[in-house]
Amino acid sequence: MRAIMGPSSDILEKLAKDLEIPYVPLEMRMFPDGEVCPRITNVEDYDRVYLFNRADYRTFDPNRYLIEFYLMAKTLEDMDIKRIEIIMPYLPYGRQDKVFRLGEPFSLQYILEFFAQSGVSRMYTLMAHITRLSEIMDITKGMRVINISVVDAIVSYVRRLNLDNPYVIGPDTESEKWADALSHKLDAEYTVLDKTRDINTGEVRTKGPLPNLTGRQVVIIDDIVSTGKTIENAVKLIREKRPDSIHVVVVHGIFSGNAIDRLSKYDINIATSNTIYNPFSTICVEDLITRAIKKW
Amino acid sequence: MRAIMGPSSDILEKLAKDLEIPYVPLEMRMFPDGEVCPRITNVEDYDRVYLFNRADYRTFDPNRYLIEFYLMAKTLEDMDIKRIEIIMPYLPYGRQDKVFRLGEPFSLQYILEFFAQSGVSRMYTLMAHITRLSEIMDITKGMRVINISVVDAIVSYVRRLNLDNPYVIGPDTESEKWADALSHKLDAEYTVLDKTRDINTGEVRTKGPLPNLTGRQVVIIDDIVSTGKTIENAVKLIREKRPDSIHVVVVHGIFSGNAIDRLSKYDINIATSNTIYNPFSTICVEDLITRAIKKW
Repeated sequence: MRAIMGPSSDILEKLAKDLEIPYVPLEMRMFPDGEVCPRITNVEDYDRVYLFNRADYRTFDPNRYLIEFYLMAKTLEDMDIKRIEIIMPYLPYGRQDKVFRLGEPFSLQYILEFFAQSGVSRMYTLMAHITRLSEIMDITKGMRVINISVVDAIVSYVRRLNLDNPYVIGPDTESEKWADALSHKLDAEYTVLDKTRDINTGEVRTKGPLPNLTGRQVVIIDDIVSTGKTIENAVKLIREKRPDSIHVVVVHGIFSGNAIDRLSKYDINIATSNTIYNPFSTICVEDLITRAIKKW
Repeated sequence: MRAIMGPSSDILEKLAKDLEIPYVPLEMRMFPDGEVCPRITNVEDYDRVYLFNRADYRTFDPNRYLIEFYLMAKTLEDMDIKRIEIIMPYLPYGRQDKVFRLGEPFSLQYILEFFAQSGVSRMYTLMAHITRLSEIMDITKGMRVINISVVDAIVSYVRRLNLDNPYVIGPDTESEKWADALSHKLDAEYTVLDKTRDINTGEVRTKGPLPNLTGRQVVIIDDIVSTGKTIENAVKLIREKRPDSIHVVVVHGIFSGNAIDRLSKYDINIATSNTIYNPFSTICVEDLITRAIKKW
């Protein structure tokens, strides 16, 4: 018998309903020094449990989020649950998907191993930093990772905007795969901006070239918004070319620090998926998760 | 060839000198969203590495601290270091050293397993929540845990205070083993206070009985100070019995939230070990660590 568990949330309820399995809300305590203590309050005779936890941008801490999942998975393992599958809409440390400088950790791989060695047999996630956009499957020390693509949900959202003459822009070269995929589906042009970081001052600069954008609706697309500086730089540059409107579409909205204040100054429309709850998380991923679970 | 590595600190340098091995400072970056990226900048041909990281009460986060250690250990494992031993002066989640309520995690055990499965062969720690006060050794999935006792260092500190007529007080029943050990070494009386938490309001109350303490020097002893509420409650009660002075001696000083402000209101002398850096961390543990490494 299967069940889905996690701290109570709208998504958890929806997933349970769509999967037609019981849902078990978990208690989540945090001590003043930052230690967490999740508690599983109601365990029947389940043989397969889907463990779900969604981050909230107001309280999000990637390290706490990982430890929470770890403690919950280990507790289930101790309760002799045969199959533990985790649904982690946002996988932290995806940024470090290779070793950029000698001596740095290959963090994404290490985080996957961390769960693989904790009795987890399957992980469903909507990884943003990926080299391929399709659903990929990976085996890490016996744990199968199912990476759910968000591209179609994003394309549907942009289509619903009914833009006459869209122009897709990636705010840096890393976002090219997203810009390319979206522009292809919309049958629109795209370009990526050139973002450079000064090694000495740490200052980030973004430059074009950009065409005249009069009469066009710009769609900025990226995988993650964290401090919002990359998006802000892109918006400043794009405004000079006088587009009709600017839409920002992002997979994961972390909005750390004063990111929301930073972006609120501009006349732009922001939308993110609901992998992390935030004021702009209007693109829902529940159906994608349900479909992936049913498929795999 | 052996080396000791970690983010640069006075203790790291002292340990390296005492162990007569090279020390390798590590870079420690943190991104605005809370992800960490430690970097090992200088790896010679070492076959055994001691990984050291000390917490600072101003920035301490137990979950980040664990993930930092994990990423560092995994990076060393990828660099083919044969023996990785970690020195973690303060081990988070020691509080949850058993399952208190059904469905809660056995966190201390899970955290030890977490490192045992990450290529770590040995962990040196000064665990506070222990059932026995002596050095104990434990094997968790092939990793040996060496728990260094701080009792002697605490006794030496209290002896140096040259108290005429000390009286030892544990602020709650859990601190009895500490109060018992200290009073025995000082040849002084001790008692423990009765701390209760209201299940409905969460309010904490502390009560005696306490004798008249005129002419006596009270030593409050505990293993961890976090919010400082337990110590504050004890101090309020003890003051009524008019002791000459109140000394507070604690192993690990986390001082989360406004703990320092809370305790600064009282005429008390506070001392903690330097397992976590804080304004009162005057009882040094370097020698204890060096001795344990040389012994085991």
